[in-house]
Amino acid sequence: MKLWAKSTTALKEVEQFTVGKDREFDTQLAPFDVLGNMAHATMLSTIGLLTEGEKEDLLVALKDIYKQIEAGDFRIQDDVEDIHSQVEFILTRKLGDTGKKIHAARSRNDQVLVDLKLFLRSEIEKITRDVRSLFDLLIEKSEAYKDILLPGYTHLQIAMPSSFGLWLGAYAEGLADDMLSLQAAYQVVNKNPLGSAAGYGSSFPVNRTLTTQLLGFADLNHNVVYAQMGRGKAERVTAMAMAGIAETLSRLAMDCCLYLSQNFSFISFPPELTTGSSIMPHKKNPDVFELIRGYSNRIKALPNEIMMMTTNLPSGYHRELQLLKEHLFPAFQTLHNCIEMTGLMISHMEVNKGIVEDPKYKYIFSVEEVNKLVLAGMPFRDAYKKVGLEIEAGKFEYSTEVHHTHEGSIGNLCTGQIKSNMEKALDSFDFATYHKAIEALLK
Amino acid sequence: MKLWAKSTTALKEVEQFTVGKDREFDTQLAPFDVLGNMAHATMLSTIGLLTEGEKEDLLVALKDIYKQIEAGDFRIQDDVEDIHSQVEFILTRKLGDTGKKIHAARSRNDQVLVDLKLFLRSEIEKITRDVRSLFDLLIEKSEAYKDILLPGYTHLQIAMPSSFGLWLGAYAEGLADDMLSLQAAYQVVNKNPLGSAAGYGSSFPVNRTLTTQLLGFADLNHNVVYAQMGRGKAERVTAMAMAGIAETLSRLAMDCCLYLSQNFSFISFPPELTTGSSIMPHKKNPDVFELIRGYSNRIKALPNEIMMMTTNLPSGYHRELQLLKEHLFPAFQTLHNCIEMTGLMISHMEVNKGIVEDPKYKYIFSVEEVNKLVLAGMPFRDAYKKVGLEIEAGKFEYSTEVHHTHEGSIGNLCTGQIKSNMEKALDSFDFATYHKAIEALLK
Amino acid sequence: MKLWAKSTTALKEVEQFTVGKDREFDTQLAPFDVLGNMAHATMLSTIGLLTEGEKEDLLVALKDIYKQIEAGDFRIQDDVEDIHSQVEFILTRKLGDTGKKIHAARSRNDQVLVDLKLFLRSEIEKITRDVRSLFDLLIEKSEAYKDILLPGYTHLQIAMPSSFGLWLGAYAEGLADDMLSLQAAYQVVNKNPLGSAAGYGSSFPVNRTLTTQLLGFADLNHNVVYAQMGRGKAERVTAMAMAGIAETLSRLAMDCCLYLSQNFSFISFPPELTTGSSIMPHKKNPDVFELIRGYSNRIKALPNEIMMMTTNLPSGYHRELQLLKEHLFPAFQTLHNCIEMTGLMISHMEVNKGIVEDPKYKYIFSVEEVNKLVLAGMPFRDAYKKVGLEIEAGKFEYSTEVHHTHEGSIGNLCTGQIKSNMEKALDSFDFATYHKAIEALLK
Amino acid sequence: MKLWAKSTTALKEVEQFTVGKDREFDTQLAPFDVLGNMAHATMLSTIGLLTEGEKEDLLVALKDIYKQIEAGDFRIQDDVEDIHSQVEFILTRKLGDTGKKIHAARSRNDQVLVDLKLFLRSEIEKITRDVRSLFDLLIEKSEAYKDILLPGYTHLQIAMPSSFGLWLGAYAEGLADDMLSLQAAYQVVNKNPLGSAAGYGSSFPVNRTLTTQLLGFADLNHNVVYAQMGRGKAERVTAMAMAGIAETLSRLAMDCCLYLSQNFSFISFPPELTTGSSIMPHKKNPDVFELIRGYSNRIKALPNEIMMMTTNLPSGYHRELQLLKEHLFPAFQTLHNCIEMTGLMISHMEVNKGIVEDPKYKYIFSVEEVNKLVLAGMPFRDAYKKVGLEIEAGKFEYSTEVHHTHEGSIGNLCTGQIKSNMEKALDSFDFATYHKAIEALLK
Repeated sequence: MKLWAKSTTALKEVEQFTVGKDREFDTQLAPFDVLGNMAHATMLSTIGLLTEGEKEDLLVALKDIYKQIEAGDFRIQDDVEDIHSQVEFILTRKLGDTGKKIHAARSRNDQVLVDLKLFLRSEIEKITRDVRSLFDLLIEKSEAYKDILLPGYTHLQIAMPSSFGLWLGAYAEGLADDMLSLQAAYQVVNKNPLGSAAGYGSSFPVNRTLTTQLLGFADLNHNVVYAQMGRGKAERVTAMAMAGIAETLSRLAMDCCLYLSQNFSFISFPPELTTGSSIMPHKKNPDVFELIRGYSNRIKALPNEIMMMTTNLPSGYHRELQLLKEHLFPAFQTLHNCIEMTGLMISHMEVNKGIVEDPKYKYIFSVEEVNKLVLAGMPFRDAYKKVGLEIEAGKFEYSTEVHHTHEGSIGNLCTGQIKSNMEKALDSFDFATYHKAIEALLK
Repeated sequence: MKLWAKSTTALKEVEQFTVGKDREFDTQLAPFDVLGNMAHATMLSTIGLLTEGEKEDLLVALKDIYKQIEAGDFRIQDDVEDIHSQVEFILTRKLGDTGKKIHAARSRNDQVLVDLKLFLRSEIEKITRDVRSLFDLLIEKSEAYKDILLPGYTHLQIAMPSSFGLWLGAYAEGLADDMLSLQAAYQVVNKNPLGSAAGYGSSFPVNRTLTTQLLGFADLNHNVVYAQMGRGKAERVTAMAMAGIAETLSRLAMDCCLYLSQNFSFISFPPELTTGSSIMPHKKNPDVFELIRGYSNRIKALPNEIMMMTTNLPSGYHRELQLLKEHLFPAFQTLHNCIEMTGLMISHMEVNKGIVEDPKYKYIFSVEEVNKLVLAGMPFRDAYKKVGLEIEAGKFEYSTEVHHTHEGSIGNLCTGQIKSNMEKALDSFDFATYHKAIEALLK
Repeated sequence: MKLWAKSTTALKEVEQFTVGKDREFDTQLAPFDVLGNMAHATMLSTIGLLTEGEKEDLLVALKDIYKQIEAGDFRIQDDVEDIHSQVEFILTRKLGDTGKKIHAARSRNDQVLVDLKLFLRSEIEKITRDVRSLFDLLIEKSEAYKDILLPGYTHLQIAMPSSFGLWLGAYAEGLADDMLSLQAAYQVVNKNPLGSAAGYGSSFPVNRTLTTQLLGFADLNHNVVYAQMGRGKAERVTAMAMAGIAETLSRLAMDCCLYLSQNFSFISFPPELTTGSSIMPHKKNPDVFELIRGYSNRIKALPNEIMMMTTNLPSGYHRELQLLKEHLFPAFQTLHNCIEMTGLMISHMEVNKGIVEDPKYKYIFSVEEVNKLVLAGMPFRDAYKKVGLEIEAGKFEYSTEVHHTHEGSIGNLCTGQIKSNMEKALDSFDFATYHKAIEALLK
Repeated sequence: MKLWAKSTTALKEVEQFTVGKDREFDTQLAPFDVLGNMAHATMLSTIGLLTEGEKEDLLVALKDIYKQIEAGDFRIQDDVEDIHSQVEFILTRKLGDTGKKIHAARSRNDQVLVDLKLFLRSEIEKITRDVRSLFDLLIEKSEAYKDILLPGYTHLQIAMPSSFGLWLGAYAEGLADDMLSLQAAYQVVNKNPLGSAAGYGSSFPVNRTLTTQLLGFADLNHNVVYAQMGRGKAERVTAMAMAGIAETLSRLAMDCCLYLSQNFSFISFPPELTTGSSIMPHKKNPDVFELIRGYSNRIKALPNEIMMMTTNLPSGYHRELQLLKEHLFPAFQTLHNCIEMTGLMISHMEVNKGIVEDPKYKYIFSVEEVNKLVLAGMPFRDAYKKVGLEIEAGKFEYSTEVHHTHEGSIGNLCTGQIKSNMEKALDSFDFATYHKAIEALLK
């Protein structure tokens, strides 16, 4: 029996298919929808589409809804399509005709857009906080273990002396650079689309500069057609920035899985952070790192998915733009979890000392010996030949002490500069400006 | 007969496979390799690994090579593996032992990295110039056609009045936002990896701050392990920024293909810019836009490809990082061509006037009529009902004149603000600083 | 306050993170886990690890669980980690020591694998049923509209006469080809991994051929290391086959969105299948097709996501393989919905007649006129020139009747052959064999 | 100075941009274009569009061209756009009007399509030969090393005994399964699109069944609109199948890189197959495997790229479909190289004996000891507890001999069945049928 034979039920099926998971994800947009409504109402009163009194009534009612949301008491009713309808419905139930006036001079399209951008702005801020915590931890551990050596690998072959300080500091510096893409995403996101209506503006004399200020946006998407193009683009640039952080986490997780393997045994973790086996008593499985790696790699596939869903769509709104939420929104929680769990693991990581004493690693010191001779005045090619012959003859002698002094090397981690780069990157976000605006709006 | 049965030829096969296309792509890196050599030699002389005289000889010889490259007279010899060997080979042939000294305190790894970053920096600058040209053209055309109306679509259904001014201006503003991601990529790229050697630094007291200044980098990759992680990362962030621009071009191309279709007929092009058919005299195929669309979409797949090739590699150098060049390097020329051809097409585009006079589009004015009534004082729901009934009764009357006045709408394109955003974005790159350094180096 | 400062809560966080959504998705695996248990228990009794009586007790208990699942009365308890533990827990509660014996000679790894493969096998079968329904509908509509002409486009430019019969039949034939990749996926999936234990087999003399027969698998994954490599691979090949079907649906949806646009107006749908606008009475938005397009494009991104998550993992089990379920499992429901909704829409689609009478399309008949002259004996180049001159002179005369007779053209749709290809493709799956085995197992 | 200011040069730029790399890649299509011409000419003579004499002249001339191509003497002239024009140009130069007649009843579109499908068919056949060689080698080595034990890993933690026989045999069986997707691709590819003209058929009474037989296709793409949809689809299914093989190669390469690391030291290679370092005498870098891994991972990104370039294109030809060649065609050579180099490496691989004697691996035998007790009659949980206590007390005693007997385990590799599966998979391609047809055509 085919569905499409039952024409009477058709409408219901269409409804169900088109609503999809919108209601589920809209709950996350709820507080931002209220803020957008407050700014819009305020603006409408300045252009004569609402009286001062109507505006006040709306603002009071909207603040109530905001508080409900914050208290966790808000939900979208089963028969209400989305967050936008739910808010308007409450306003109309409470304020009658005044509630009906709030939708003037806007469209569902710019309403969703403004919610989305406020939401993304807030999520980006949360990411910076998470990253900052992890960064601080990595820096702290990098300093703590700065003197503990580790073999450095190229081609997965032992190569040169490295250190735990270098290894952990590298990921810290990586996170600082990752903030640069996030900053670019933030700038794309932090622009006001409100007033673009269905993507073509309107004949109402709306004051978009005012709503920009009220919502604490740094600027507006000026051109209304471009504002609408922000759907898909805001999601993509944010996902790309997330992918960058995810790449950093994933690589660190891979290193840890390897270093925890019995074949490396560079690090270990307390039993409650690894997973045992019901039968193999020696197992200390790094499940947490494996999951961080997998989740992070999934986030790395997200920008591609977004592009696959928006490629070759002509300009103008298309319905599937709504679907971009479904994998992007949960990715914020996933990234948060991955950062937090990385922190949990690294903070409990025990590093093994004396690793490089193992004769297996002796040749990582061969370059050291060559360089010593060079620094003592022997031409490089002669020094190289001398050490090479010693190795061949089985007479290679070496010390496991290393004296690296240049910027960014084992003995000179440049922790201060790396921290200062992170500070600079984080300061450039300037979240305070938007916080002030939102506080003023909610006052 | 299997290859691997012939053990005598094995070595040659391995050589051929591992060299791959390195020599081909290395030609693009040649000038940057010379610059890196000059900075390194200068620095070596300050820490006593080269005498002043040796340094001078090297700089003279390197400048010669640079001039040869600029004159197009440079090539990598057939039996020389890569650009780095070629340069060292020339120096040694010319200067004997002095040439052999230049490789002290560095490794092939940081040499490739520095070449790559100098190359990417230069390519990013070229992209900004291309984008700027196209941006100016779009702005010019947006202003020129600001009064010519166009139906605006949502869901590919006619929706509201738009204009050529809005449509073209949207893409201009889009390019300005695309510069933000490119700026982030630039910041990641414009940091000095030199001195990180094989990714673990060295025992030589190299002065990385000095080479940073000499090469005009804004900063250094401090941590040497992180410097090595720049392989793959520099390529990825650059590709992501390119994907953003490509998305803008691809969407514009799709619009143009649609608008040129006989079913839209919004725009036309002189015959020499479209492709005819040997048999169908009516054909004006938009091959150029289709190819821009296809090339751009391929660029959009590039960040994913880079991530697929680097995912789950532990930290430390791996040989396949060399392969990232093969699709990335040609993508710069492709993007350049796509921008240039978009400009060529848009500059010759003829826009059709009077499009919205066609009664097919009359309902795009229905909202206008509703809004007029609202602005005249009628409550929105009453106005909406009135117009709805007129439409149903076949009595809908409308005017094709629109008066949109708010920021970013048909009558108020905010061209000035959009231009100023582009200026600000481009200024933040600060290419002048690096130009000055390179000029000083070559002087 | 950082999470990782609170060491006492660490374990709980790790638990929560590692369990993830396993319990949620495992409900879908429940019936298959029971079947795997039944086959394993039966086999164990043949090699002396269970007595005949123990086996019978287990089979009775397992059938009970199966019925509970079918009745919708089964759930995984909150404190039980996964479906495998839940089933074993029930058996042990009921049968004491006998329950504990069932895990002998297997591991969680091959248990998950067998569940997954049985699940995928069943989902692939469902897809074939859905595709078959849609195929039949497309064929029916292709025949029904075989005489109604449509302009055919190349480069989005009008080109040649096409027909609704051709257009719809093309998608039917496309689905038949899509079944070939699904068949390949089915063959990869329909092989028994049970007995591979943790991916290295065991010292128990298990009879893997017997469990293969009992579960109706067509073959076994012989090599146990390869069996374990099936994780990720089974998911990937299935996702690739789904992507093929999704591509077909997505393209059809795009055509429909275009053809419903007022600029084409080739097709229409009853109002209850399109979405209106609260303000624009002319809107008949094709939301359903847009969502089909978006969902399908997301499915097309799935194989890439799976590869991104498994790339460069060495052989042997890794924990993140568990995460592959999270986007793959819901994709089955999504694909089902998309096929069903496509059917719903196409079954209610009204096609407009007389489209090609519109003079806008007259040149699609130019080739017809040339060919008529050629068939009447005039050399091609002369005929071409004659028609070309008529067109230039504004004297082009044409008929909108077309007589295309060759295989697969407007007048000869080859519906029979296309249907027979679909039959052949579907027959090759041979689901009956596995149904018979499962029925025998459950008897 | 902007390009688009120079309107006189515009046309040349457009020409250059639209030709792109078509001529370069068309050389690979040349022999197939000739074959398509031969089949088309033969068919035309049966429907009266060519006389018997004209047909004979054409066939003789075409065979000449074919021989030239085979001899390496053929090239596309600089001023000729593509292979199709080149062939027609030669025919016309030689045969005058007869040459001009050959393009009747076809279009550039179906000509490209038929070339592409003949080319893909041939490349798929080459892949099967390469895969077969590597498969045979893996099987041979699996048998040769079947008694040499290796630690098996889960979570990168040592887990259970494995063997080189198991490890190598797993990849052999994997390749057999990979042939299933390639077979599906082959079936999609091996269908005749000729006669579909521009994608809408024609009014000529062409005999498509005849050209199908002449070219040895297994079937035709019946519906002409669907035939045109083969562009992009044939490329995609082929790329997906290639990605499957690439995944197998990439994983094997990753294992080898790991096993060659000094931390594993399971395998080694003669010096001429690894790459040393100019300074670190201990380095045996597995460059070949790293490059195989990188190239293979790039091939895995190819299906996604193809989909990104074709997503949301409405039905009907679009120009960018031509661009799909640019990354797909070279991927065949890349895959061939990767398979061949894998074979070269594996054939020279030396496996280390006695690996598991290292006490580091002792716990991989713990399950063995538990199972021995169970097989001797002790209940599993008691046995498990006993061994667990021994381990805790430091009294764990074990033997490194393993007796695994079940299907697919260390002692029972099922080599025969795996080989038979590969035979069956390869036989199903039935290349002989098309070879016979092509030979007949060329006779």
